[in-house]
Amino acid sequence: MRLDPTTREWVIIAANRSRRPHDFAVRNEGRFAIASEGPCPFCPGNETMTPPEVLSHRDHGTHSWRVRAFPNRFPALTRDGNTLRTQERGLLVSLDGFGIHEVIVETPAHDRMPGLMSVEEVQDVLMAYQERFRALTKESWLKSLIIFKNHGRGAGTSLEHPHSQLVATAVAPRHLRMRQQVALDYYDTTGRCVYSDLALLEADMGTRLICSSDRFVAFHPFASSRPFETWIVPKAHQPSFSDASTEVVGDLAGILRMILVKLHRGLNNPDFNYVLDLGLPGSGNSDHYLWHLRLVPRLTETAGFEMGSGIYINTALPEETAEFMRNVRVD
Amino acid sequence: MRLDPTTREWVIIAANRSRRPHDFAVRNEGRFAIASEGPCPFCPGNETMTPPEVLSHRDHGTHSWRVRAFPNRFPALTRDGNTLRTQERGLLVSLDGFGIHEVIVETPAHDRMPGLMSVEEVQDVLMAYQERFRALTKESWLKSLIIFKNHGRGAGTSLEHPHSQLVATAVAPRHLRMRQQVALDYYDTTGRCVYSDLALLEADMGTRLICSSDRFVAFHPFASSRPFETWIVPKAHQPSFSDASTEVVGDLAGILRMILVKLHRGLNNPDFNYVLDLGLPGSGNSDHYLWHLRLVPRLTETAGFEMGSGIYINTALPEETAEFMRNVRVD
Repeated sequence: MRLDPTTREWVIIAANRSRRPHDFAVRNEGRFAIASEGPCPFCPGNETMTPPEVLSHRDHGTHSWRVRAFPNRFPALTRDGNTLRTQERGLLVSLDGFGIHEVIVETPAHDRMPGLMSVEEVQDVLMAYQERFRALTKESWLKSLIIFKNHGRGAGTSLEHPHSQLVATAVAPRHLRMRQQVALDYYDTTGRCVYSDLALLEADMGTRLICSSDRFVAFHPFASSRPFETWIVPKAHQPSFSDASTEVVGDLAGILRMILVKLHRGLNNPDFNYVLDLGLPGSGNSDHYLWHLRLVPRLTETAGFEMGSGIYINTALPEETAEFMRNVRVD
Repeated sequence: MRLDPTTREWVIIAANRSRRPHDFAVRNEGRFAIASEGPCPFCPGNETMTPPEVLSHRDHGTHSWRVRAFPNRFPALTRDGNTLRTQERGLLVSLDGFGIHEVIVETPAHDRMPGLMSVEEVQDVLMAYQERFRALTKESWLKSLIIFKNHGRGAGTSLEHPHSQLVATAVAPRHLRMRQQVALDYYDTTGRCVYSDLALLEADMGTRLICSSDRFVAFHPFASSRPFETWIVPKAHQPSFSDASTEVVGDLAGILRMILVKLHRGLNNPDFNYVLDLGLPGSGNSDHYLWHLRLVPRLTETAGFEMGSGIYINTALPEETAEFMRNVRVD
């Protein structure tokens, strides 16, 4: 059993149940057979099918876009209502579904797989994340901003066209408060940031390292909760994703693309989710917390034990999956 | 948005995305097409294929069993090793996979669906849980005991023959500590148990109630994280599952069977997980905590937003799904 130092949750690494890394390569036929009803709302030419855009990257002198963002047509949260809590009979606490839910279309190409995108395309997407992050953190009610991507039906996507999403909430998720608290406790004890320490440790040990760039390391964490869980963490402390320079975002694009290509080739384009872990806005993140990216391929099911205990059973050794990923060639 | 009073996690009830309850009924063909290699180790006659049994219920004067328990052949945790922690370079905390992992075969009938079991059969299973719970809580190293059932491939089962599992850990899951703390905080403020208060409230309001028995209520909680999430909670305070009388366990069997039948008929035998939430052993549960059962059908996928925020997006209104379930007939 291994302890995640950033959540203090235990993980069971079930070596006796473990499969060889290549056994996780998945079959792809039919996985994306999502019944499409009518034209794709994310494709060029269908822009009127989406709500008015809040962001686009366009080539100079043309009308064609590379990246577009707009409010989700079926939002989980909206700007209707307010943030006042209602408390009925002591136990029933609720508020309006107040917030923002946006879609970021990553490319005009309907069937471009993430593992086949160029560094420039990935950078365009990351820059769009940053622009929306900068714009939305100005909202006084904002208590969390989650930027994430679901790839593949098994990862919760209902549309094939590559897209990311952004959800801004007016309540602070307890899960993020918990991560902050664990990072603060570590900081109080050591005077250092637990994420920076992890990045340095993994870069130094190398056994769970996938690759590194000038400014980032990508690794399968010691207490990975699921096979091929991948973290991309800045090597040096960074005040916030919002303030990251174009060079930093470009460097992240390079290493993220490398991970996406390796997953695509090594595991045959698996379903996955990734999330940018940006911390709690306005909580003075600069010393104890460090933004990073977490990616989890959907290769195994969680079950009743995870539901009851919060402890994951991971059927793969991170050291073995990392070695497998290091050996996947990227041209 | 609604706040779960037992975890203090928010849930988004996405009414605009909601489907009608009957839309969650699933197609069943091929769902259980688990490639079986050779004979079923859980079937009568194949007892030698399993490790030596630790429990069985047998009919008097016969050799045939109704329920059997034995160590898992592919255990997540074993009695090998010890509970000493290793801390490498500050951040890499681990210990041996020390613990117990058992299987409880619920019936001799290979293809008996949970929704077709009799009250007597369900009671046999619950009695077996209680016997193993009583036996294992004597272990001095025990820090948590998770009893759970995975039904269907989408719920993480690899074997069709109906079975439950039990995992005993030598570490306290942070998730259980958190639940204890929330219940303690509620107790300190009110002098009452949050689970008892919830059971009384749901029985009284009735809008999210499925059914009730002499001693239990079954309902879809106000802040349900997923469609048709079902809780079964004792009406009156009970010191512990271990001390529950045969009458109490029999009463629980009746209401659990009713839920299983309603799920089977109303949603066409969906995959599900349930877990007995027994609290932390030896933490003086008696006043602030109340054991209960939580069941979650696997009808929707979680995705990047849940992974990043810990907030679930539930696409069904608990009041509507509860009404649907109340109307499913049980003969």
